[in-house]
Amino acid sequence: MSDLDARLAFVLEIDALKSVLRRNSIRGGERRENTAEHSWHLALMAIVLAPHSDSPIDTARVVAMLLVHDLVEIDAGDTFAYDDVGALSKSRREEAAADRIFAILPPAQAAELRALWDEFESGTSSEARFARAIDRLAPMLLNYENGGALWREHALTAARVRARNASIADGSTALWAAVAGRIDDAERQGWFEPD
Amino acid sequence: MSDLDARLAFVLEIDALKSVLRRNSIRGGERRENTAEHSWHLALMAIVLAPHSDSPIDTARVVAMLLVHDLVEIDAGDTFAYDDVGALSKSRREEAAADRIFAILPPAQAAELRALWDEFESGTSSEARFARAIDRLAPMLLNYENGGALWREHALTAARVRARNASIADGSTALWAAVAGRIDDAERQGWFEPD
Repeated sequence: MSDLDARLAFVLEIDALKSVLRRNSIRGGERRENTAEHSWHLALMAIVLAPHSDSPIDTARVVAMLLVHDLVEIDAGDTFAYDDVGALSKSRREEAAADRIFAILPPAQAAELRALWDEFESGTSSEARFARAIDRLAPMLLNYENGGALWREHALTAARVRARNASIADGSTALWAAVAGRIDDAERQGWFEPD
Repeated sequence: MSDLDARLAFVLEIDALKSVLRRNSIRGGERRENTAEHSWHLALMAIVLAPHSDSPIDTARVVAMLLVHDLVEIDAGDTFAYDDVGALSKSRREEAAADRIFAILPPAQAAELRALWDEFESGTSSEARFARAIDRLAPMLLNYENGGALWREHALTAARVRARNASIADGSTALWAAVAGRIDDAERQGWFEPD
């Protein structure tokens, strides 16, 4: 197979991400969000919100990371952020998915995209910390806009949601302050289960 | 409004792109594709297929262009590629949409993203030519995979589809060759209206 044919096969394979459903809804709440449109939203958010990164970042690398970071869900599915049981097997399932999916590409390019995915997963570089902050920010913004529907549905406490999202501050103190303010407000509105 | 608040308002506004439906379907044909997931697909295709650009390109700028190029559809809707009537008013409708949507951002950033949109629309830079090639390639690949469903539904001729997509060659002769081969094959299979 030529390099071009391998790349086109990859392009068709990843179309499946449009059929992976996440737990949260699009704005307005009329349907659940899929992982492909979520990835688009994150990539554009990274460009728009880059000025709020605490460390200097290569925005293009953050964008590329966010475009590929959820491809593994084609095989592994979306693991809900508050699913402690699913979390136990998540990294094994996602590693196997990454092994299969990136290998569709020509070897050098497969290694390049896999490295971006590994960088996001390890979360240690400035770019990965900012990308992970954006990935947590997006559903928080949507859930807050949607009247906390997801938090109510899963009877989450404010403490759990704060603990789960506090790492946004590792990438951006300004974005974490914006999210923390919304959690405080949601708590006042009674959208969380009492502790 | 602070710059951060303006950016978050923009992030929520553009969520609406997830509800704009295009004419073509996702792979497998079970539902129509929305413009947000389409934009994700294009951005990642640009990274993967960049080696096939005929001119040297700044891939990050191509990716950013593809992430924003369809935002105007939030107001203007998707204009079908073969809708000659819609095409007459398309640029007026899309200019008005660009004026409104980018202006939600802080002024300097609004100008930056608007410039990317203008660059894509004018199609003169190497980056814009490659971005436009990718934008045409994606539905061609999906329609071919889906047995030419969209071409049949609209009773298109092979000549019209060739004429509409030949500008892919302005960005990439290799990608145009891949598309032209699929059009030839679709014609042999009888998926087009006779001339």
